[in-house]
Amino acid sequence: MLEARVRSIFEKARFVEELGIKLIKVSEGSVETELAIRDSFRQQHGFIHAGVIATMGDHTAGGAARTVTGEKDVITIEFKINFLRPAKGKKLKCVGTVLRGGKQITIAEVEIFDVEGSDEKLVAKLTETLAVIDPRD
Amino acid sequence: MLEARVRSIFEKARFVEELGIKLIKVSEGSVETELAIRDSFRQQHGFIHAGVIATMGDHTAGGAARTVTGEKDVITIEFKINFLRPAKGKKLKCVGTVLRGGKQITIAEVEIFDVEGSDEKLVAKLTETLAVIDPRD
Amino acid sequence: MLEARVRSIFEKARFVEELGIKLIKVSEGSVETELAIRDSFRQQHGFIHAGVIATMGDHTAGGAARTVTGEKDVITIEFKINFLRPAKGKKLKCVGTVLRGGKQITIAEVEIFDVEGSDEKLVAKLTETLAVIDPRD
Amino acid sequence: MLEARVRSIFEKARFVEELGIKLIKVSEGSVETELAIRDSFRQQHGFIHAGVIATMGDHTAGGAARTVTGEKDVITIEFKINFLRPAKGKKLKCVGTVLRGGKQITIAEVEIFDVEGSDEKLVAKLTETLAVIDPRD
Repeated sequence: MLEARVRSIFEKARFVEELGIKLIKVSEGSVETELAIRDSFRQQHGFIHAGVIATMGDHTAGGAARTVTGEKDVITIEFKINFLRPAKGKKLKCVGTVLRGGKQITIAEVEIFDVEGSDEKLVAKLTETLAVIDPRD
Repeated sequence: MLEARVRSIFEKARFVEELGIKLIKVSEGSVETELAIRDSFRQQHGFIHAGVIATMGDHTAGGAARTVTGEKDVITIEFKINFLRPAKGKKLKCVGTVLRGGKQITIAEVEIFDVEGSDEKLVAKLTETLAVIDPRD
Repeated sequence: MLEARVRSIFEKARFVEELGIKLIKVSEGSVETELAIRDSFRQQHGFIHAGVIATMGDHTAGGAARTVTGEKDVITIEFKINFLRPAKGKKLKCVGTVLRGGKQITIAEVEIFDVEGSDEKLVAKLTETLAVIDPRD
Repeated sequence: MLEARVRSIFEKARFVEELGIKLIKVSEGSVETELAIRDSFRQQHGFIHAGVIATMGDHTAGGAARTVTGEKDVITIEFKINFLRPAKGKKLKCVGTVLRGGKQITIAEVEIFDVEGSDEKLVAKLTETLAVIDPRD
């Protein structure tokens, strides 16, 4: 049921589906996602665009937050992302974790890895604040 | 020449071209961009996805930074974005301004507006730190 | 009455009073503060410590937010601050402005200036998210 | 020698010494600090002021960064801090860790805990970007 809730956030978000961000694992307070990189995701230096990484990070943070809010929904208020190394590879992996769940506010952090075979390099770290909202509003 | 430098960042960035982010105005320390919204840019509530807004904001910050770095190039180190209101419309406008140019670091801020005819609502604000890099490195 | 509300935040906050942060102007959605710099506010390079600037910025953001929340109180959820230039002088001035007021969340931004006579240099910029809370809770 | 480098940042920073932030542990890429809370550190709700927590977090991030920069010094460019719970206690503990060391830029994250006996609650999390500078400049 937890997974169904999170999955619905991923399936109904057109932009996330277009990019191809896949939900891999769901547990209470944590979500893992993956993204196969297309050439169209790159920027002028050939690296994966910051916007692709930020989109993946934001949506994964939202998924993690959604695991702790029961019937309530979540919406991003703000996020901050640090890019630690250029991401160059064919696949990104993203792990989102709830730092603090609350009735009005949930805070999550996300690590994004550039995956090459068994090698995973941390390429970005994101911290996000989400509002907990009533889906009927 | 200033415009040519910035335009090259937009033309060579595949992801920005895919989304359709257009460079509208360039002056020293400032850049304006526009984006026509497609249905595929939306998230589960029908609003424009935070990742689309962040991508536009990040790239516009980079464009603004590029106007003050001469022959040097720029790359995003980090950004922070606050979402002030849901963005629902057909067009986004984005204005990026350099807060501080430097030899190693440039800082820019960006305002993103949801545009409906002559009505412009501020929907997000982003602050970004960029490293100034030698394009030959 | 608006000023009385904001003034009470400044008078009851012991740390702010110890540092000597003074409330200068209050209007709906905006607050201005000042701080006379003591030698004990400096860090290892002789500049004003980032923590002093952040404290002033955070509290001024809170003051600005408090002008738009009526009987409700505010508490900081998160902030982000960019340091644009070293602050070296004898006086800091700080202007806080509400970007977006809301029932649950208020967002403010703050500019901090190093003041030397009639010369004001922007040394830092802060963006802050605050929760709107019932003071009886 | 590593410890001597970091210790000098703490001893020469007047504001840090005034507050009483103590360096507890130093290893490559990591630093731990402590702070005994005085009543003068509180804000209008009786909680520890966000500025005290931010000062401690910023300086601990700087200490952690300083462990990986050899003869070079560091200076804060920006930080972002999320407050997860009100900090109410008598002692704060702070652990700073380098996420990415580099020639020009170092990125660190910091966790701040409210300590009551053997109980430690995570009250804030900070991410910071520092410039690596030549101390002779």
